[in-house]
Amino acid sequence: MQYYLEHLATCVSAISGVLSARGKRVDLFGVVVLALVTALGGGTLRDTILDLRPVFWVDDSSYVVTAAVCALATFFIARFWTSLSPLADGALQLADAASLALFTLVGTEKAMSAGVPPVVGMAMGVITGTAGGMIRDTLVGEIPMVFRRQIYLYATASLAGAAVFVGLRGIVESNLLRLLAICTVFGLRLAAIWWKIYLPAFEPKENIHQG
Amino acid sequence: MQYYLEHLATCVSAISGVLSARGKRVDLFGVVVLALVTALGGGTLRDTILDLRPVFWVDDSSYVVTAAVCALATFFIARFWTSLSPLADGALQLADAASLALFTLVGTEKAMSAGVPPVVGMAMGVITGTAGGMIRDTLVGEIPMVFRRQIYLYATASLAGAAVFVGLRGIVESNLLRLLAICTVFGLRLAAIWWKIYLPAFEPKENIHQG
Amino acid sequence: MQYYLEHLATCVSAISGVLSARGKRVDLFGVVVLALVTALGGGTLRDTILDLRPVFWVDDSSYVVTAAVCALATFFIARFWTSLSPLADGALQLADAASLALFTLVGTEKAMSAGVPPVVGMAMGVITGTAGGMIRDTLVGEIPMVFRRQIYLYATASLAGAAVFVGLRGIVESNLLRLLAICTVFGLRLAAIWWKIYLPAFEPKENIHQG
Repeated sequence: MQYYLEHLATCVSAISGVLSARGKRVDLFGVVVLALVTALGGGTLRDTILDLRPVFWVDDSSYVVTAAVCALATFFIARFWTSLSPLADGALQLADAASLALFTLVGTEKAMSAGVPPVVGMAMGVITGTAGGMIRDTLVGEIPMVFRRQIYLYATASLAGAAVFVGLRGIVESNLLRLLAICTVFGLRLAAIWWKIYLPAFEPKENIHQG
Repeated sequence: MQYYLEHLATCVSAISGVLSARGKRVDLFGVVVLALVTALGGGTLRDTILDLRPVFWVDDSSYVVTAAVCALATFFIARFWTSLSPLADGALQLADAASLALFTLVGTEKAMSAGVPPVVGMAMGVITGTAGGMIRDTLVGEIPMVFRRQIYLYATASLAGAAVFVGLRGIVESNLLRLLAICTVFGLRLAAIWWKIYLPAFEPKENIHQG
Repeated sequence: MQYYLEHLATCVSAISGVLSARGKRVDLFGVVVLALVTALGGGTLRDTILDLRPVFWVDDSSYVVTAAVCALATFFIARFWTSLSPLADGALQLADAASLALFTLVGTEKAMSAGVPPVVGMAMGVITGTAGGMIRDTLVGEIPMVFRRQIYLYATASLAGAAVFVGLRGIVESNLLRLLAICTVFGLRLAAIWWKIYLPAFEPKENIHQG
């Protein structure tokens, strides 16, 4: 089960990596690297920091293949598909919400199984869910989309799902627990996009005087 | 002792992470992530490269809590504190100098206790002291402040303190050794700001012809 | 043999790290850090992800010394050498091609010796060859040169060399195998620069309508 969920999340998040390269004159190889980094970056960071060896994609290289194949497919489909832009934006957001939910679940569950404190378990859920996208955005020269208010609740949705998992662990049956965590992240993320919910931005007082 | 020093450095460096977000339209979550990355990034890199397990904040999650609480406090205080700007700039520089000194000491000491060669011990001091800030600056889209001449001696102060620690280790009593290392970094950094001491910048000859 | 090759690659890639700082007002220390990151970044990532301990430069600090000395030498030579620019650009490209070839070989060989799947072995060759340069470019605020079409085949050359090594391993005698892998990368890279061979860039259909 976790295996298929991870492959699905790997695929959608590879696609988001490819789509991030729009308008940047990135070549085919760069697109594949961006896809791999987005799809595998968060989990690699989690496994490296928690010393869970071997790192998931070193052990099972099918993740690398999945991400690379999805990237290549997206690369070529995007070239021949006319007027893709509005569809791609919507698809990117849905795919991103789904992979955020799946990766958050997998990350929190792996960390909690390794016996770390609850705070670290939640941090690992958020890292697995968002770090790949942060590296992706940094590589294409943008401030990570996770940090920006205009993106609406993003990492916050991931944190909420991780908190649900950590809080109800041992209380609720494990498949129900997974479903609850996924729905929390996915629901909160879509609700935030729909109703334009965002966290306050950091505006120190003096900026008001300056601008 | 090392425990309290590390928490103090975590706190001040979380604050510098928050203040780096000024004028970037980063939201509350982004601010907390920037604080965590700045405060925990250098030590995470050190522990991961040296394979010191578990990574310090995975073992003792109070570091995560300290950094997050300091970040939230700074976020809200900065919103309501009028005409903070000049004060914040001064405070940022002092806090940064203090956390640079403390992190350099902790990093060098941990590495030398792990039995690495002196050169690696000094590198780990500098990494612990400066890598968090480098990641912070890269994430908000700026060339790391450590690299820029206008910042005056920064990583150089860290390197000097690490060299003092490595050089006098086993010769001087350990608490005096710590004090000497901290004073070297802190003193050199403040002196560099005060007297505007900087390293030469990289200006290949042909740039003079061009500009 | 591998030892001298790695030191040579460390040296040339430290030089490319220094030269990347042109026109960025980076100071002496920043230049050394850029050189170290470029020279040691890829291998550090490889050893950390594959859990090959200790990380190569922690075990043998001569790599750190080599990179730092090359960086300092380049820093001072570049200051006093008039009309260096065209020569430096050519030298940068040759040095980069050589270090790409050497690092790809070393990375692939180390990974395959650790018994990872072929896909992961090739990924490690490419990571060792290109990740240092990616971090270098990100730190100086540019989209990694590896991603850009105008650079011509770069990571692709590395991947081809890694594939040759993985594919012919056990079939061809080991020193010939190394020579073949190095020549594949170096030859392909120089041919790509000479004949301006590049991969297609990512241009979704809608961009044609927009621009």
